Amino acid sequence: MVHAAELIRRKRDGERLAADEIAELVLAYARGDVPDYQLAAFCMAVYFRGLNGAETFALTDAMIRSGETIELGREIGRKVVDKHSTGGVGDKTSLAVGPIVAACGVPFGKMSGRGLGHTGGTLDKLESIPGFRVELTTEEFLNQVRDVGLAIIGQSANLVPADKLLYGLRDVTATVDNVSLIAASIMSKKIAAGADAIVLDVKVGDGAFMKTLEDARELAQMMLELGRHAGREVACVLTDMDQPLGQAVGNALEIRETLATLRGEGPPDFTELVLSACAHLLAFSDLELDEGAGRERAAGAVQDGSALAMYERWIAAQGGDPAEDALPAAPVVREVAAETSGFVRAIGAVAVGMAALRLGAGRRTKEEEIDHAVGVRCLKKRGDSVAAGEVLAEIHARDEAAAEQACAEVLAAYDVGAEAPESQPIVLETIA
Amino acid sequence: MVHAAELIRRKRDGERLAADEIAELVLAYARGDVPDYQLAAFCMAVYFRGLNGAETFALTDAMIRSGETIELGREIGRKVVDKHSTGGVGDKTSLAVGPIVAACGVPFGKMSGRGLGHTGGTLDKLESIPGFRVELTTEEFLNQVRDVGLAIIGQSANLVPADKLLYGLRDVTATVDNVSLIAASIMSKKIAAGADAIVLDVKVGDGAFMKTLEDARELAQMMLELGRHAGREVACVLTDMDQPLGQAVGNALEIRETLATLRGEGPPDFTELVLSACAHLLAFSDLELDEGAGRERAAGAVQDGSALAMYERWIAAQGGDPAEDALPAAPVVREVAAETSGFVRAIGAVAVGMAALRLGAGRRTKEEEIDHAVGVRCLKKRGDSVAAGEVLAEIHARDEAAAEQACAEVLAAYDVGAEAPESQPIVLETIA
Repeated sequence: MVHAAELIRRKRDGERLAADEIAELVLAYARGDVPDYQLAAFCMAVYFRGLNGAETFALTDAMIRSGETIELGREIGRKVVDKHSTGGVGDKTSLAVGPIVAACGVPFGKMSGRGLGHTGGTLDKLESIPGFRVELTTEEFLNQVRDVGLAIIGQSANLVPADKLLYGLRDVTATVDNVSLIAASIMSKKIAAGADAIVLDVKVGDGAFMKTLEDARELAQMMLELGRHAGREVACVLTDMDQPLGQAVGNALEIRETLATLRGEGPPDFTELVLSACAHLLAFSDLELDEGAGRERAAGAVQDGSALAMYERWIAAQGGDPAEDALPAAPVVREVAAETSGFVRAIGAVAVGMAALRLGAGRRTKEEEIDHAVGVRCLKKRGDSVAAGEVLAEIHARDEAAAEQACAEVLAAYDVGAEAPESQPIVLETIA
Repeated sequence: MVHAAELIRRKRDGERLAADEIAELVLAYARGDVPDYQLAAFCMAVYFRGLNGAETFALTDAMIRSGETIELGREIGRKVVDKHSTGGVGDKTSLAVGPIVAACGVPFGKMSGRGLGHTGGTLDKLESIPGFRVELTTEEFLNQVRDVGLAIIGQSANLVPADKLLYGLRDVTATVDNVSLIAASIMSKKIAAGADAIVLDVKVGDGAFMKTLEDARELAQMMLELGRHAGREVACVLTDMDQPLGQAVGNALEIRETLATLRGEGPPDFTELVLSACAHLLAFSDLELDEGAGRERAAGAVQDGSALAMYERWIAAQGGDPAEDALPAAPVVREVAAETSGFVRAIGAVAVGMAALRLGAGRRTKEEEIDHAVGVRCLKKRGDSVAAGEVLAEIHARDEAAAEQACAEVLAAYDVGAEAPESQPIVLETIA
């Protein structure tokens, strides 16, 4: 029997726990033999005392062992790649990266979670598409990765059940913000879902979990080590989340922006991030390309229409209607006009995210329903010049009252000033 | 609705919480509206960040408000006194203090808890006495304090239910060791149980919760402030717990030692502590005595037999047989002999307590049954000279095997050396 109280005390007092002690605690918790309240106290002790590398490996490993695992590469007979982001405002990267990579002939298989926060997660965005099924069986998932080359589905309940329990608990006990717990949560799911190579997009800034480059580096390094420890190839891109990514924030609006990007008409920052991620993934693939060649191949798939064709094939394979016209549209669209001339110096990502949330694009509780049509489009981005009266952003709302409130909030999120801000690339750093 | 996760986060981040926020959290927890796991995380955050004076007042006050309160003084029409100890090995102080104070004409009313640890708590010790009832109704308790002048009973379930819940939770989540949580737990019970004046015995040393004088001072100061904030008179004595208190460790053995002390034949250290506590309590009483006169009055009650008579009256009032012969005796008594000559330099209080626990005098889990007859008597105490072969201690056991193990453990607990140790008084400090 695991002496949970004793393990909590030792962690509280700053001691290092042995791998088998951590495994016992986590597996007993997953079986229901250790109650929530002991794990809650343990996570808070970890928040203050941290876990070292060996402890984080043990935690990740135990979480993986709490459920089933998939060996994608072995099942498909090819090297399979995956991409994960720590989450930000307007982050639809996987939706464009998947089709481009698959169009280049590299199998892409991703299991994703639902969002709780500003805007929906990847699954919520996909559910904007009429008919799209996010719940496939593991067999359907494998078949689709093999036959179509691309599948993005909801995470199977059998995969990493300990993380599901633990994440739910951390969410309501203020114990989310710890680099080891975050890294173990992300990487246990990525490793269990079975891709051979993974590109991790670690967001940095106002709208991200990691507020500073230093914190983001620490998380990236930890995830890299966890992935390699499990025999996976991993690269991390640290990317700017001080302003929303691209223009669109809101589920169907982000699908529209994905389509534009796959047609070669996407916003520059988003397009750049998508191509960077694709370059890393193609360099990891069995195509024997370097990153430069990977990037060219990805850009080519956009130019020649094969990425868009792959998107359509993929969406149809999961039961969805790939046509842009099929997407829901909000009944009220209002413009946010600049009050003064100058340069956009900053756009508060959290403020835009919260405006979208209040419009109905996200959920505050697990039970809340998402309105897929609503959201914000930030037409002017940081560094853009703007004249007084010119349109900064568009609000897509359910009704006039909601639109009015969002207009005020989004206007307040824009900082327009006389001097142009220093330019900042979307990819701040790559750790590989 | 209380946003428990947000309050946990703010405490985790070192913020001070408002009194009404703490009250809401604790009262919602007591009602079952906030789950154990959120309080567990909160207590661990408090472990690391602490509570300031105002927060500790608020916590104590909320715990009191979670249940019924008794106003002993008003009900009795006299000033009523109480005494509490933070617990140690061989601590039977209340059992002698109560009869002496009551014999001096001062009403003494105490609600006590059960022990979980080395040896039993006050209630377990009293239950060594055949027939003794620890469960009285509040009305019976009040009547007995009024008519007999003395009652010691189990804490009513209606008193401070939040503490009962929280203490149980802290016990299994390694969140016991925080001065504010300890002070609030003790003082909420003392204040709710309604005595007008309280003497707190804060144990210091190996066998105590507080290992250093500094920690003990901090706890004493906090409890003093909590009591005064609630309009009670409070004095704290900081007392030595580096060796067992008196000689007897074990339930019926401690009742026997109480009887000896009430006859004026108790061990010097225990007698000194009892008289000190009595002096403070009598000085707080409505008898208009100072401490010096209080001490004389207490010593007089022992000398003239009135304290012993009061003990007999009290025990009988609660259904018990006050005769020493009625107490259970262990079938096996073995002596622990000194291996070398010299001075007793130290007696490990925890080691003796653990030996008594293994003999059956205490309980490791709430379900374990106590053997009231067994225990240890430390005949030689720190500073005593001893010849090789002379008896250091007596083991009272259920069988030979248990006795043998305890003999070895108790012998190992004794440090006998050539040089006499520095003498240390039982009362280290008084804070009032």
